Amino acid sequence: MLRIPFAELASTLAAVLVRTGFEPNRAEHCARLFAETTRDGVYSHGVERFPRFLDTIRIGSVDIHATPERLHQFGSLERWDGRRGPGNLNAWAAMARAIELSGDHGIGCVALANTNHWMRGGAYGWQAADAGVIGLCWTNTLANLPPWGASVAALGNNPLIIAVPRPAGHVVLDMAMSQFSYGALATYQQKGELLPVDGGFDAEGHLTRDPAAIEASQRPLPIGYWKGSGLAMMLDMVAALLSGGLATHQIPIDPVKETGLSQVFLALSLAKLQPAEESARAADAIVESLLASGASVRYPGRQVLKTRAENLALGLPVGEELWNDLRRL
Amino acid sequence: MLRIPFAELASTLAAVLVRTGFEPNRAEHCARLFAETTRDGVYSHGVERFPRFLDTIRIGSVDIHATPERLHQFGSLERWDGRRGPGNLNAWAAMARAIELSGDHGIGCVALANTNHWMRGGAYGWQAADAGVIGLCWTNTLANLPPWGASVAALGNNPLIIAVPRPAGHVVLDMAMSQFSYGALATYQQKGELLPVDGGFDAEGHLTRDPAAIEASQRPLPIGYWKGSGLAMMLDMVAALLSGGLATHQIPIDPVKETGLSQVFLALSLAKLQPAEESARAADAIVESLLASGASVRYPGRQVLKTRAENLALGLPVGEELWNDLRRL
Repeated sequence: MLRIPFAELASTLAAVLVRTGFEPNRAEHCARLFAETTRDGVYSHGVERFPRFLDTIRIGSVDIHATPERLHQFGSLERWDGRRGPGNLNAWAAMARAIELSGDHGIGCVALANTNHWMRGGAYGWQAADAGVIGLCWTNTLANLPPWGASVAALGNNPLIIAVPRPAGHVVLDMAMSQFSYGALATYQQKGELLPVDGGFDAEGHLTRDPAAIEASQRPLPIGYWKGSGLAMMLDMVAALLSGGLATHQIPIDPVKETGLSQVFLALSLAKLQPAEESARAADAIVESLLASGASVRYPGRQVLKTRAENLALGLPVGEELWNDLRRL
Repeated sequence: MLRIPFAELASTLAAVLVRTGFEPNRAEHCARLFAETTRDGVYSHGVERFPRFLDTIRIGSVDIHATPERLHQFGSLERWDGRRGPGNLNAWAAMARAIELSGDHGIGCVALANTNHWMRGGAYGWQAADAGVIGLCWTNTLANLPPWGASVAALGNNPLIIAVPRPAGHVVLDMAMSQFSYGALATYQQKGELLPVDGGFDAEGHLTRDPAAIEASQRPLPIGYWKGSGLAMMLDMVAALLSGGLATHQIPIDPVKETGLSQVFLALSLAKLQPAEESARAADAIVESLLASGASVRYPGRQVLKTRAENLALGLPVGEELWNDLRRL
């Protein structure tokens, strides 16, 4: 594992994107989002994911020149067409627009259809929190999760992000509706470890902590069993209806052909209601009450800031083979 | 178990409330919400909960004459003070205002501080869906759930409601962040049954399906372990910050003294974006795709409509002792 300085990783990725045909400023932004994802420790969706992102461009799932277009506007609610542009640039633009709307109306909502995988959903939560607003967003995905009571995938794992700004460190939840992603299952399997809790069913339909058995059955668990199953369905439904776009059951079931996703971005301007110091005090008190309840309690986003500091100090971890590939592309 | 006609149950409860000092129209509304909760099969928060609601009035947690007051307004975002009025009437008024705002702005958000237990959260989801809008709402609660990594309660179970209108039957999720409520644990225990899945920890800190062991340890599980723990924290944080009200760590830990809750109500007007028939078609297709994935798959709200029809036909189930008590009050 190499340690690459943030700026060098970002500029290397940007150079690849420019050679792929991206306009320079879009290449820089798209590359920076990938590098920031690795910087923050979400390795599965950072530079490690970059080769697959290039595949989705190559086969035409992603149109690198497309920018989102507004279709409808009513007050603080807008519907946009992502025109199958790069998922992370589209999502960034949608959250930026929701934040802008929240400045005018207190709250802004952008429903985005016809977009692509947004990579790390948490990025748009940090974006909102950095802008000083509360952010909520979610996406649907291809079917990768059996509903409770079924053995075949019919739900997406539909990540949900909730972000609250806090001067001492934003609190940002970024969670998919499956208890473990297939990426996480593979990691446990490689290490020869059992999952810490049940993560799905084996071939006989019994709950299991064996990642290989779940990989084989293709039956990962929704969080909270029937509860996460219901929540995943609602997130898909609201995203598809508000955006006028595809629902999970209409999205191609292939990670490279997956396209036409539906997403929702909400921004709420706390600053219109009370001074920033009041919000900071209330947020700090909640964080402290949680941390006081147990020595191993964490809060969403805490680990990100630690990992970010470490990676900025030491360089971002990138596999040697991947790094050599990137410089040849 | 008696079977009482809906109208008779509602008017009996209303009469009790009038004798408690409620104005007649508020008594009628409050009683109807309790009766509708029992009608829809959410027995733990319907008429069975009514005696405890009277206790909260008696000890002063609930002020039966208080109505919510608007403190701040900015565009489609408003902050209201619930003034410790009856939780179900306050929540109904807040969702009604959010729906009204969504008619003017596409989306409406009411943050409500200083309110009381809203009883059945799903009621406000059905309210939104009946008005033809998408509804999201949540509440914080007293601390009743240990965060992941702790053994003492520091989180509320903070129910989250998401509702989508659908002519063939609204789709309404109403879920708390604990895998099983204490009420559900007691029901399994009375029947001498194990939980269908792990529901918490025993005294030795092992995950268990034994409801009595969880009741004894007071360590129920958040849905999805660390994930539901994070989600519960975010719901509390957003509700407390937006409303300017109390967070879970500030709420008295006693079911009768629990007061000063913070809640968020969001309404999104789908009708401003597309014709109702398009929304209905998309919603139906999602429901059908789910039902097609497995014979025992359900969707949120489906069971409610079956139970509602049965209870309206046969009468609402009410324990004989409770019914006699209600008529004596």
